[in-house]
Amino acid sequence: MKISARNILHGQVVALTKGATTAHVRLELPGGAVVTASITNEAVDELGLAVGQEASAVIKSSDVMIAVE
Amino acid sequence: MKISARNILHGQVVALTKGATTAHVRLELPGGAVVTASITNEAVDELGLAVGQEASAVIKSSDVMIAVE
Amino acid sequence: MKISARNILHGQVVALTKGATTAHVRLELPGGAVVTASITNEAVDELGLAVGQEASAVIKSSDVMIAVE
Amino acid sequence: MKISARNILHGQVVALTKGATTAHVRLELPGGAVVTASITNEAVDELGLAVGQEASAVIKSSDVMIAVE
Amino acid sequence: MKISARNILHGQVVALTKGATTAHVRLELPGGAVVTASITNEAVDELGLAVGQEASAVIKSSDVMIAVE
Amino acid sequence: MKISARNILHGQVVALTKGATTAHVRLELPGGAVVTASITNEAVDELGLAVGQEASAVIKSSDVMIAVE
Repeated sequence: MKISARNILHGQVVALTKGATTAHVRLELPGGAVVTASITNEAVDELGLAVGQEASAVIKSSDVMIAVE
Repeated sequence: MKISARNILHGQVVALTKGATTAHVRLELPGGAVVTASITNEAVDELGLAVGQEASAVIKSSDVMIAVE
Repeated sequence: MKISARNILHGQVVALTKGATTAHVRLELPGGAVVTASITNEAVDELGLAVGQEASAVIKSSDVMIAVE
Repeated sequence: MKISARNILHGQVVALTKGATTAHVRLELPGGAVVTASITNEAVDELGLAVGQEASAVIKSSDVMIAVE
Repeated sequence: MKISARNILHGQVVALTKGATTAHVRLELPGGAVVTASITNEAVDELGLAVGQEASAVIKSSDVMIAVE
Repeated sequence: MKISARNILHGQVVALTKGATTAHVRLELPGGAVVTASITNEAVDELGLAVGQEASAVIKSSDVMIAVE
């Protein structure tokens, strides 16, 4: 599958917390930055996500803001 | 200003394209990944964005998906 | 690639309009409903999108609202 | 009320799960596709959502991505 | 139509700019705050939006971030 | 920090509910409108949010829809 989302950031799952319906997944990128995703518990199960696994953060460009100091 | 968005990725502006109302800004992260943001032309002007500048991509965790191969 | 997004709706591209930086793509689903996506021109080119093509609309569940009459 | 969101997909509620603050609502469209929405428990209560009910999924076109095989 | 979106802010259209495919609409709220929406030109036409008109900004709560000084 | 998001609405926290992973924060704007944000519990803690506090709702313009009666 190829997707229109402009941002596909490869990394490794470093933390995974399931809530009642929503889970938080943390991915560490090669440069050391950590990306947090808030996804459904169901998606965590279906993708078989686990700490230590390789995965990508996928982000539509219209969901990215820019900040400057 | 401190913001609730869980993802603040520092990088450098490597490309900037303005359309009629919407601009695309590309940021290179330290690890080499490139993040594309689709923001208003107005925001580009107000932040004084330019290629070469240090900036951050700010992304709410509920806008991040996870993909696996 | 498997993605955490809960909504992957298969259909056929029935219209495609490119703007200065942003394109609108319309997909007709089997039941007749039409889904409109606003994506970058760049994504349209990279995916080689064209009218008549099979494609899927991918939507994160946190971006779906519910309305009742 | 008329809304700017380009996507209003009519269907029937086929599942409804409430979490601590966030609920997942599943809507089956006429063509058989199922759409999952992640909304607040409060919205579920205010709209009086229940399995079997007619409802619509409302999605802003900037939240729709396109994927191809 | 009743919608699950938790934020429906009533105001008056004070500016309207159409781009190639995307328009920016500015709404002034009773307290003086101005809200900017980036919507499709098509939606502007279909809703018959014009400066001076009463309208509402509709925002899903998962798209709202919080910032503190 | 200056951010590209076009909407920064100043107000006061009037309610705060934490779920398992996701919290709902309500902000009252000067004109009396109330804005609800769905953010991570972690962000609530990190920002030290509490009822009575001054805070701002930050919303990207591409996440704002317009509705008319």
